[in-house]
Amino acid sequence: MSNGPLRIEQYETVRYDLNCNPLGVPDSVTRAIMQNISAVGRYPDTYYEPLRNAIASYACCAPEHLVLGSGSSDLLRLFVALLAPKKALLPIPSATDYEHVLSVYGCETDFYELDINQDYHLDMDDFIAHLSDTYDIVILGNPNNPTSQLISKADIEKLAAACKELDIALLLDEMYIEFTENYERNTAISLVNTYDNLIILRSVSKFFSVPGLRLAYAIMNNETNMTIINMTATPNSISCLTAAACTAMLEDTAYIHESHSRIFTERNLIYSAMNTNKNLRLFKPSANFVLMQILKEDVTAKSLLAHCNLKGIVLRNCENFHGLDSHFVRFSIMNPMQNDLMVNTILELLR
Amino acid sequence: MSNGPLRIEQYETVRYDLNCNPLGVPDSVTRAIMQNISAVGRYPDTYYEPLRNAIASYACCAPEHLVLGSGSSDLLRLFVALLAPKKALLPIPSATDYEHVLSVYGCETDFYELDINQDYHLDMDDFIAHLSDTYDIVILGNPNNPTSQLISKADIEKLAAACKELDIALLLDEMYIEFTENYERNTAISLVNTYDNLIILRSVSKFFSVPGLRLAYAIMNNETNMTIINMTATPNSISCLTAAACTAMLEDTAYIHESHSRIFTERNLIYSAMNTNKNLRLFKPSANFVLMQILKEDVTAKSLLAHCNLKGIVLRNCENFHGLDSHFVRFSIMNPMQNDLMVNTILELLR
Repeated sequence: MSNGPLRIEQYETVRYDLNCNPLGVPDSVTRAIMQNISAVGRYPDTYYEPLRNAIASYACCAPEHLVLGSGSSDLLRLFVALLAPKKALLPIPSATDYEHVLSVYGCETDFYELDINQDYHLDMDDFIAHLSDTYDIVILGNPNNPTSQLISKADIEKLAAACKELDIALLLDEMYIEFTENYERNTAISLVNTYDNLIILRSVSKFFSVPGLRLAYAIMNNETNMTIINMTATPNSISCLTAAACTAMLEDTAYIHESHSRIFTERNLIYSAMNTNKNLRLFKPSANFVLMQILKEDVTAKSLLAHCNLKGIVLRNCENFHGLDSHFVRFSIMNPMQNDLMVNTILELLR
Repeated sequence: MSNGPLRIEQYETVRYDLNCNPLGVPDSVTRAIMQNISAVGRYPDTYYEPLRNAIASYACCAPEHLVLGSGSSDLLRLFVALLAPKKALLPIPSATDYEHVLSVYGCETDFYELDINQDYHLDMDDFIAHLSDTYDIVILGNPNNPTSQLISKADIEKLAAACKELDIALLLDEMYIEFTENYERNTAISLVNTYDNLIILRSVSKFFSVPGLRLAYAIMNNETNMTIINMTATPNSISCLTAAACTAMLEDTAYIHESHSRIFTERNLIYSAMNTNKNLRLFKPSANFVLMQILKEDVTAKSLLAHCNLKGIVLRNCENFHGLDSHFVRFSIMNPMQNDLMVNTILELLR
């Protein structure tokens, strides 16, 4: 034997913790960037008309109901700063950014604990019963992160109406909605025509796998808020390349269809492969990621992550989500061979 | 003769109204974008370390004194929102955006009229004599837009000290400073080490001719403000392509040198060619643009613009600048043949 380094198997690092589409950056994005490089020499038009029209057509909303932002984190900050809520009601577990941004802007938060025995699904009637006019804002992820649970459009409408009655703003984060089956039926976008207290956040980072472009958009139908935003928000903060790339990508129906087909198939396969294992509990996913509880006492999220890291598999430890503990892990759905390796590697520790 | 359309001379449209570098988009920008397209699939690091280091090195400041933003308009809004001034003192004429943004955030503005008989140069001792502790903020462009007048670093230091004494924030907009001769001696960046009330705004849009990328930066040395900004500002609002392009471009010394050489030469030629004309008055420029007053009664900015438009020459009508009237025009310095055409076309009406 040689005295060289030991031969170890090399694995590519795969980020199951970022929840991005496994198909990766659409070719339409690359093409649009190459074709529009010269636009960096010109000021973008402040209305971003082609981008705005592409979003309106993609999301089935009126162009004038759109607010553009540099990522969903940017829009979350914009709306919390704009609405200046004093008290919020948040279901937990949910995305850590909601609570963080609310607290930065001095908003007190009450938590509504989702029930693990209902697979963390939100019981809308019970949630509504907890509302009162002391609240100024409710923030919901739909599907929710990290639980991957979907709330029906009918339930969202019930909530929007109840919030409207109590003068509560409803911020609905649909960052992952396009990963759900028949998402056109799940999205609450059409409800903005009826409820002016409803604000829907959308991001392109996850579904189109372009987090480096920094684009998100919100849909709302509230003249007062829109007037303030038009006055105060920076008129042309989006780079011309981001605008051109996103305009092209939203019209890339081939990518959209292939994404759905890939993710729906893989989601079912992963769920079937893992769900019967008695050492773990899967919460049936609606989005492109899965929340899993480890039921084996001596395996923690931390030890499972360390084990998976050896094969380049990066999972999300969920212990910092309010309401979860050191036995929760989240992973997203990647490509077939990657998913096989991930499932097998997880099961090595939990068999 | 044929019955076809009349043969008319065709002119390329040249934007003398945007104040961008006539060399156009640096090749280093195009290259960096092509080489970094795959980065759109990844989240930018929230600190933007390579970009931050490139700016710090370019602008001779500490990386931790930098605030990044999506254009100077974005940073102006950020600082006005952060400082929440009640009363401002603005020299006029100056950039229209200052007064607009201050008023959007409910700040009352007093105007200090620059004296046309001093070529709109700011008399610093007199300006300081107008300060009082009723003011919360002073905003100055250096060089000032649209006057193209430069304030010496010694005068800026006097002002920063006087403002500090009165607890007034000094927002110094150096968007055009790199177009001045020996700009390293003119910039006030090193003064942030002494004056924590000084905030310097810089943009890359004008000097590097990349307004489509949307990047600006501010330099300040104020822990309280920096802490609030780090808490509230969106952590990763800049696209990865903008970050990569700007990092490369700030190190493109060939472009920087060629820009200086081109602009200094052309500025002198234009000034010499027009300055002796008795029907116009040029205010000796320090930046890459020139303010001109039309002294011929029957020619207005509007009629001169219409005349120039016929040859594709787009000038800036300055009548909407507070303190100017319908006889003021601003134009920037473009490339040699373009400038010859512009000068000749203007002189056609003013001879």
